[in-house]
This record gives sequence, structure tokens and C-alpha cells, in this order.
Amino acid sequence: MSNEGNSTSGCPLPLSDYPRILLAHGGGGELMHRLIEDLFIPSFANGELNERHDGAVLNIGGARLAFTTDSYVVKPLFFPGGDIGTLAVYGTVNDLAMCGAKPVCLSAGFILEEGVPMDTLRRVVDSMRGAARASGVRLVTGDTKVVDRGSGDGMFITTAGIGTVAEGVAVSPSKVRIGDVVLLSGDIGRHGIAIMAKREGLAFETAIESDCAPLHGIAGDLLAAGIGIRCMRDLTRGGLASAAIEIAETAGVCIALEAGAIPVREDVRGACELLGFDPLYVANEGRFIAFVSPGDADRALAVMRAAGPDDAHPARIGRVEEGRPRSVVLTNMVGTRRVISRLSGEQLPRIC
Amino acid sequence: MSNEGNSTSGCPLPLSDYPRILLAHGGGGELMHRLIEDLFIPSFANGELNERHDGAVLNIGGARLAFTTDSYVVKPLFFPGGDIGTLAVYGTVNDLAMCGAKPVCLSAGFILEEGVPMDTLRRVVDSMRGAARASGVRLVTGDTKVVDRGSGDGMFITTAGIGTVAEGVAVSPSKVRIGDVVLLSGDIGRHGIAIMAKREGLAFETAIESDCAPLHGIAGDLLAAGIGIRCMRDLTRGGLASAAIEIAETAGVCIALEAGAIPVREDVRGACELLGFDPLYVANEGRFIAFVSPGDADRALAVMRAAGPDDAHPARIGRVEEGRPRSVVLTNMVGTRRVISRLSGEQLPRIC
Repeated sequence: MSNEGNSTSGCPLPLSDYPRILLAHGGGGELMHRLIEDLFIPSFANGELNERHDGAVLNIGGARLAFTTDSYVVKPLFFPGGDIGTLAVYGTVNDLAMCGAKPVCLSAGFILEEGVPMDTLRRVVDSMRGAARASGVRLVTGDTKVVDRGSGDGMFITTAGIGTVAEGVAVSPSKVRIGDVVLLSGDIGRHGIAIMAKREGLAFETAIESDCAPLHGIAGDLLAAGIGIRCMRDLTRGGLASAAIEIAETAGVCIALEAGAIPVREDVRGACELLGFDPLYVANEGRFIAFVSPGDADRALAVMRAAGPDDAHPARIGRVEEGRPRSVVLTNMVGTRRVISRLSGEQLPRIC
Repeated sequence: MSNEGNSTSGCPLPLSDYPRILLAHGGGGELMHRLIEDLFIPSFANGELNERHDGAVLNIGGARLAFTTDSYVVKPLFFPGGDIGTLAVYGTVNDLAMCGAKPVCLSAGFILEEGVPMDTLRRVVDSMRGAARASGVRLVTGDTKVVDRGSGDGMFITTAGIGTVAEGVAVSPSKVRIGDVVLLSGDIGRHGIAIMAKREGLAFETAIESDCAPLHGIAGDLLAAGIGIRCMRDLTRGGLASAAIEIAETAGVCIALEAGAIPVREDVRGACELLGFDPLYVANEGRFIAFVSPGDADRALAVMRAAGPDDAHPARIGRVEEGRPRSVVLTNMVGTRRVISRLSGEQLPRIC
């Protein structure tokens, strides 16, 4: 973890104190937050960006649509449980699903480095085709650029996606309110550990595969069941902790989480200890949290269990309570409560 | 220009003869064409990709929309007349305009290299804001990734865009028919020469600035005037020649162009001679060709003159005729006709 510009308090350094981009500006922690808040949102000021959501929900030509984009720079390109192609499709499908949208179509922009094997590209394109089929989306438009050797790193992919949002569906951080229950769709940390293990050449007794998967099915089932969903957020860069902090700040609420209720597989926990990571901050690519009205929590959990993977183990992990607004409080196994903060440096560069 | 895998005939080598990605796979010429035809279109088979257009036109949630994406890897990031930010906004706005769409909103994915100066990012974001305002679009969603030093080259940007397409508007290569007149919206070659001059440190007596500009105004005026537009295509990578060849092949027609009618500024022509380029293949970022019904050609040219920049000099440069289908024939200044082909190598890497 970089110590440059370390800041663990609630009083971060302004963006202007960083004359150059650091890895942490893309890490999902404090510096990325500052980049978004101090540069992007003021520059492009509009209602959609102000929602600070995984995508924009807007009316275009009489249709209610969600629109989102993500660039993928994962290293290595292939990892246990997926590759940059599955990630590029599922990641964008999931951002649409988190907006309460039914994903419809994707675009893909490839930035290839001169010299990358054609078979590598073929394998990635095959993965994208399979992932698109599994997600029920069509890849309808694209672009390819090639950069000279040494100016890239094999392959970067940027996908954008459009989905339809049904009338009456309003899923967004600003809808979260006191009393809401926080549900987690499954155990955390597999994606980040799968990538780090592959990158570092670590071997574990049981193979840890990325949880990379589409979430539109579970999210769609929750909506179809008439669950009162306030907000959903997938737990990518920065993991569960960062997602919860973002939502607490946007909604202006206090989110209380129970460490003991958060499922982490034993092998993932062991790998985290070995690598010095806190699973709360490790990236996932097939997990999300949902904020639901208290009366719907049990039913929502049942839907998550029925619609999600068998080995995911969804759980109720906390609730929104009276307390210091814009904070996330974690109660640990022995009952001690502490406020958790954003990552100040970059723990897992190029995780997605 | 690379000689690897050279192929100047109409009988190119199959994709499988290239075990690795070459710069030319992103150059707008023969190899990029093969990549699209042999890999992307068969993999993601659907009606929108089959149209081989600048974007997809599709019905989503009851709305008729255009959707497009482009990645930008231009080197250097700043050049006379623009920068990667203006390019990233106008390029995607223009692809929407070429589909007959009114551009509405954009997404932006940034891939930043660790160490890039924060002020560089600020300048680019400022340019994007200005370009978005000039194009009447909002930038509503985005993403930032940072790659480690040496794994990128300062900054790559991928934008995607959504526009609305009015009922009755059907602008696409497949609509082109024999007898159509080919109009060019202005002089060609400025963008490519501006970039190459800056990159090579060349100084010309008069500064050559990129023609980088939004085209939605001219395209919108043509549609609003009720001109019978069959197809529009902006002249980016591979220039006028490559765009005409793509359309001739998709439409299955013969396009006859008059070299003497194609406007090229004297300084651009001189620079092309110096650098060994044919202006027909040099990239533009604010020029397009329109195929219109013969009876509308004069009126369309008048609209182009009224709506375009004062110094652009739109012109009638050819027509679609009986002749060898899927070919472009150029008549030179002394009346000799020759079939022109795609670039076989890469003339101007990282031009956009």
C-alpha cells in the first residue's frame, strides 16, 4: 500500500496537493473519491452525475434508460474464474442491474498493444460472447485501437451499456433511509484474492476462483418480487467497505455493519491474512449489497438465496441507524464498534 | 508504413496469417477490416453490427436510438486545433450524427498512467466540458482507472454516446444506390497533418490546425431541410479513401470520385508530399461525405456551405455509378481512372 499522501482521517488533502496521478487515484479509496468530487462532478455538473450512482438513469426519446461505462485494465488478462472479457461484460451488466435496469445492449472499445497474440484476443472475444449471452445482452457497436509496443499492456477494454428502467423503479443511494436493512448477496473477497494469487504466483490448497458473475438475474427477481429496494451497489474496487462508505456519504446516513455476519470463506480469509489484506476492502465482481425496507428483508434474502449461486450464502449484515451521518460503523466479533474509513492508498492495483 | 503482411490486391491474407496484433490492425485499412469481418462481426453476430455503420441504430424501451463508442489514444495528447478531450467528445458526437441521430449524452472512461500530471488531466477535462457544451450533449456517467507507470501512455479515453433518431430517418451504407451524388463537407487532411507535424517537430510556414469539430449541426440541418440523405460517414482513420471503400463494399456499389474536385489546402498538400502521404488516406476529425439523391445535391451543398465552417469549401466529388460492384474508382487530374484500395499497412499510427 502506498504511503504517499496517506490520510486516514475524515479531513483529506485537497486534490491540488497531488501534482501527479497516483495508482490510488484509480483504487476506489480516498484519492479516487477526491478525483470524482473535486474534478469530474464540478466539471460536468448535471443531475445524473450528482446522484453518484453506478450509472445514470435518464429519459431519452420517451424511454427511461440506464447508461453506464467502465474501463477494464485487469492484470493478468486471464485468472481463475474469468478473464478481462467476462469482467468487461459482467461489470457493465452489473452496473446497469444496480440501477434497477434490465440490461439490453453493450458497446466495446478495445485498446490493443502491438504484439499481443491474436489467440489472446480470440479467447477474450469468445469470453465476451459467452458472457453477453449469459446476460441476455447484445454487443451492438465497437471500436479497436492499437498502440505501439510499450505504450499499453496487452489489452484494455471499455464497455458501455444501456438498460431499460421500469416506471416506478427508483433505486439510488439518495433513497436510503434510517431503519433500512443491509443485505449482502454472498461471501466477499474471492475476486481480489483470485487475481492477487495468480499475479503473485501463490498456490492455495483449494483454488480460489473469482466470483465474477452477472447480477441482473438476482436484481431483476428482487424487483419483480415487489421488494422495497432503496439502493443496490456492487462491491468492486475497494470492496464492501468502500461501497458502504460511498452510500453513507451520498445518503447522509449512518450504516452499522456486523463483522460477524459478513460471510468470508475460510480460504479467502487465510489468503487475506497471508497477503495483509482486510477482506472488507477486497474487490468482488459478483456480489452486491441491497438496502431494503425492514419489512421486506426476510423475503429479499429468500429471493437472493433462490436466484444466486448455491455457494454464495447471502446474509443480513447490518442496518441504517440513527448515528453520525455519513459514517459506517463496524461492530466486530467481540462487540467493539469502530468507524471505518476509505482506503488511503492503493491496496490492489489493476484488480478490474 | 509497415511492410509486414502487405497486401495491395483485393485478395487479402486471412486473419489467421497474423499471429500477433500489428499497428495496422487499428489503422483503418485492410488489416482492421479483416479483424472486424473475420473476428468481431462473426463473434457478436447481430443485425446492428451487420450494418457496418458508425454506430448502432436500435429500438430500446420504445425509443429509436443510436449508440456508438470510440477509444482515443492520440499521440501527442495536445495538438494544434485540439486535444484528446475535444477528440473524444467530437468523435463520438460525430459518429452519432452520421447515424442521423441528435446526440444526447456521453459516457467517458479514462485510463490514466501513473505519474501523468494532474494539470494535464484538468486541461483535458476542461476541453471535454467545452466540447460537450458546443455539441449540446451532457456527460452523464464515467469511470477512471490508473495503470502503473510504463503500462500506458499518459491517457487513453473511451467515450460512448446515445442519440435519438427521428422516425423516418434511415441513414446507412445499405441505403446507397446507383445515381447518388457524393458530397464532401470540406477540405481534407488537416487533422492527420496537424498531428504528424507536432509529433515529428515539423514547422510549416502557416500553422496547420486539426479540423476537429462537431458535425451534428450540419448533419441536423441536412435532415431538417428534408434532403434525401442515403448515408453519411465521417472521414477519420484511413481518410476519405477508406470511408468510400467501406461504403462501396457494404452497399455493393461502385463509387466514382474525381480527384480534381476534392479540396485539399495547399499547405496540407505540401506537407503530405514532404511526409510521403496521400491526402486521400489522411485522417480528418471534422469532415464527412454524404450520399444524396441527385435531385437534392445542389440544395444539400448549399446547406453544407451555410452550416459548416467558412473555410471548409464543401464540394461535389463524385457519384455512385454502374461499374464493378464494391469498388471505388478515382479519376485523376488528367482523366485516368484507377481503382483505389485500402491501406495495407499503417500510415499514421495513433492519429485519434
